[in-house]
Amino acid sequence: MAALSSGGEVPVAFQDPDYLAAVVDLLGVISYGEISAFERLAEDAKLAPTLEDKVELATMASLELGKVQALHERVRELGADPFGAMSPFRAAIDQFHAHTAPSDWLEGLVKAFVGDGLANDFYREIAAYLDPATRDLVVASLEEGHSAFIVGRVRAAIEADPRSGGRLALWGRRLMGEALTQAQRVAAERDALTALLAGGVDRPGLDLAAIARMFTRLTERHAARMAELGLDS
Amino acid sequence: MAALSSGGEVPVAFQDPDYLAAVVDLLGVISYGEISAFERLAEDAKLAPTLEDKVELATMASLELGKVQALHERVRELGADPFGAMSPFRAAIDQFHAHTAPSDWLEGLVKAFVGDGLANDFYREIAAYLDPATRDLVVASLEEGHSAFIVGRVRAAIEADPRSGGRLALWGRRLMGEALTQAQRVAAERDALTALLAGGVDRPGLDLAAIARMFTRLTERHAARMAELGLDS
Repeated sequence: MAALSSGGEVPVAFQDPDYLAAVVDLLGVISYGEISAFERLAEDAKLAPTLEDKVELATMASLELGKVQALHERVRELGADPFGAMSPFRAAIDQFHAHTAPSDWLEGLVKAFVGDGLANDFYREIAAYLDPATRDLVVASLEEGHSAFIVGRVRAAIEADPRSGGRLALWGRRLMGEALTQAQRVAAERDALTALLAGGVDRPGLDLAAIARMFTRLTERHAARMAELGLDS
Repeated sequence: MAALSSGGEVPVAFQDPDYLAAVVDLLGVISYGEISAFERLAEDAKLAPTLEDKVELATMASLELGKVQALHERVRELGADPFGAMSPFRAAIDQFHAHTAPSDWLEGLVKAFVGDGLANDFYREIAAYLDPATRDLVVASLEEGHSAFIVGRVRAAIEADPRSGGRLALWGRRLMGEALTQAQRVAAERDALTALLAGGVDRPGLDLAAIARMFTRLTERHAARMAELGLDS
């Protein structure tokens, strides 16, 4: 394994092959998520009512893609191939997008806000169980921008047509449900990633009660995001 | 008009309203070209045979979009609205892309290489007639990357299937023809931009012989690019 570019030694945690496998999995799923976020946002940009809106969404797409390189670099430093690391997660993420293809511009905006927010919250929760260098890398890859743009557009649309609020609230619930379905699928298939949350020899882990609390936090933050858009959750 | 951020005074040339209009037009057409290059490359990325190839094309798309902001900033400094500046060119550029939608991955690669190369050569020719600050901005926006990736992929494909060379050579000619058609249309409609090439009070211009020589250079460079791909022009 090559030395980590973040300087200095490979953290002790990486001597545990399960931990190494889990981190490679995690960096793989996050980076494939960002590549498909690029694709989806670039696609949804076509639904934009104005060129200004299109450029906003295209810029969000580029920002997502721009985060991939550092994650891939780290996967290589850990002795793995980034494309190999992404491949176990392609089906779940592709399915998520296939099942939640927005039918219009507003659904695309809500999905960008709620879907990315949910994924980011989840990765932030996991980050607490990582060595500091990996944690910093993961947290840096989750920086969000442009949410003020989305909130402004969605709230204005609901104000102009209050009935659209009901439809978009349902849409938000569907996004949450589909995300949980696919996360469940990944958890069932990727033992190393799941074991990460359960802890290891020299790492703390989560018991079932702690996992339940984590899901409560994720659900509460989802509700807060929906409320920010002016939607019931 | 606000001061130019490139520092210092507004060049004398901008006291000529025709020159000002021409530069706003030029920055408008280049930036809309880059926005639609983003859209087209993001779309063509779907045709990629592998995820690695898809990420290459998506990265090229992001690079194009990344150049837009500086151009828009300058349009604002010149007292104009960037979206207004782009609007006269949307139809021609959209038509170009509608008439040259690649039917497969290789056509998309050839288009990215030949089409962008041609546009960049043309803007570089025009740049010679600009004040230094605008010239530097335009030239910086034309930086190309990733051409080694495209050349490698296209040459390997022709080697594997020599018949595809004939088809792609025809495709290259069609791209050139469609680009000239749309450039002609823009030239006929945008007096200020055309007048830029003809010179002004304190700026040199092109006579017909010089314009003919410019077209010869553009054609030669197009042929050189086709040859680099292993294609007849």
